[in-house]
Amino acid sequence: MDKNFAVIGLGRFGASVAKTLYEMGYEVMAVDKDPHRVQEFSEIVTYVVEVDSTDEKALRALGINNFDVVVVAIGEDIQSSIMTTLILQEIGVKKVVVKATNDLHGKVLYKIGAEKVVFPERDMGVRVVNHLISPTILDYIELADDYSIIEISAGGSFDGKSLEKIDVRSEFGCNVMAIKSDKQINIAPMAQDVIQKGDVLVVIGHNENLRRFESYNLK
Amino acid sequence: MDKNFAVIGLGRFGASVAKTLYEMGYEVMAVDKDPHRVQEFSEIVTYVVEVDSTDEKALRALGINNFDVVVVAIGEDIQSSIMTTLILQEIGVKKVVVKATNDLHGKVLYKIGAEKVVFPERDMGVRVVNHLISPTILDYIELADDYSIIEISAGGSFDGKSLEKIDVRSEFGCNVMAIKSDKQINIAPMAQDVIQKGDVLVVIGHNENLRRFESYNLK
Ligand SMILES: Nc1ncnc2c1ncn2[C@@H]1O[C@H](COP(=O)(O)OP(=O)(O)OP(=O)(O)O)[C@@H](O)[C@H]1O
Ligand SMILES: Nc1ncnc2c1ncn2[C@@H]1O[C@H](COP(=O)(O)OP(=O)(O)OP(=O)(O)O)[C@@H](O)[C@H]1O
Ligand SMILES: [Ca+2]
Ligand SMILES: [Ca+2]
Ligand SMILES: [Ca+2]
Ligand SMILES: [Ca+2]
Repeated sequence: MDKNFAVIGLGRFGASVAKTLYEMGYEVMAVDKDPHRVQEFSEIVTYVVEVDSTDEKALRALGINNFDVVVVAIGEDIQSSIMTTLILQEIGVKKVVVKATNDLHGKVLYKIGAEKVVFPERDMGVRVVNHLISPTILDYIELADDYSIIEISAGGSFDGKSLEKIDVRSEFGCNVMAIKSDKQINIAPMAQDVIQKGDVLVVIGHNENLRRFESYNLK
Repeated sequence: MDKNFAVIGLGRFGASVAKTLYEMGYEVMAVDKDPHRVQEFSEIVTYVVEVDSTDEKALRALGINNFDVVVVAIGEDIQSSIMTTLILQEIGVKKVVVKATNDLHGKVLYKIGAEKVVFPERDMGVRVVNHLISPTILDYIELADDYSIIEISAGGSFDGKSLEKIDVRSEFGCNVMAIKSDKQINIAPMAQDVIQKGDVLVVIGHNENLRRFESYNLK
């Protein structure tokens, strides 16, 4: 199941995708029309080529149809992004993942056959806001409309207390699923386990209950 | 504790930050030097002004020092991003969050006093790769170098089986922390709870154990 990937467009997002995949051990072909970008990437991926992806013949010549996944990371030039995606569909690439600039761009991409459309700036905007408004929340997953998992830094109000003492489940209606301290991580916390200030707690629950837990933690 | 926010630079990231904060009910002042951008945002935030943020006098005139958090979302023009951040420090804004384009840019921003630096495209590149290489993983949190929480779509191999039967903890060394089905979410799964294909499982564990769990799930 070793997949190989092509990444078209080496802006900040495309560069990160290409680099991360290559560092994980996958074969990565990177494509950009800008010779400076191509130069920069010569040591960072398996190979990199200077090609304008709106040129169907050039894309075919690269054997792009042999790649399992092609990521199109051209954002600002919406027309090129759409044309490239269309051409990849015609060539018969099975999985095309495309970066979109706005909702309309995204809708067009799905219509013409993109398998997945991503909005990196928009999504990170939402994530950053969630961190900004609650500085103790380190990371989170939205599970359903009203349920989340949050990673939270334990404040003074929990310091030195056991889970039993805090009585998280009945007091706050949420569950502590992991406690991460300096040196170790406990992924099956027991009632008698003690929290220290600065520990990272992973908590699951209804958003309202999580907010109550968080306010108490901030006291 | 009602904070107010200023967002400088209404590209894709800044726009998302400003819009998300405003929709959450916060006061948001948005700033861009581009009159077209300013026009677009007139209904989307509390107020929006056309100002070049490298103009210290103009920024002061906006009363920018009265905002609790200022987000600088100028990415491409690194020099403007740095100058704006410097000016905000001089004016005495307490919390300045800045979008960076690359590592070097990020280091400079921290040196001159930014409280938080974010790399939206780079971070989303890494997240998208994690989804690409394991299509069943819906979301994840990296807890420590080797531990994560993943949200995974249950495949056929778990269908109709109880947690007890699958014996997740001793077979895979990880814990199922939540089971989300069509209609409800169970945030305290018991041994006898049964998984249906298509349920979303939230699993915590060592990355290697999670990978084993995932491979079995894919069978
Ligand atoms: N037709 C094309 N063929 C190949 N590469 C292209 C084409 N059009 C644009 N690119 C390349 O795509 C890369 C990313 O494009 P651009 O900077 O417009 O997107 P972006 O969304 O602003 O990127 P990011 O925000 O991720 O940095 C650039 O390096 C550019 O040279
Ligand atoms: N000195 C400045 N003062 C005010 N606004 C500015 C200044 N410089 C740039 N901007 C605005 O910042 C916005 C975002 O800038 P830019 O497009 O360079 O960043 P970006 O990182 O590519 O954005 P994104 O990828 O989030 O779309 C633009 O709307 C631009 O007009
Ligand atoms: Ca760009
Ligand atoms: Ca961008
Ligand atoms: Ca997450
Ligand atoms: Ca831009």
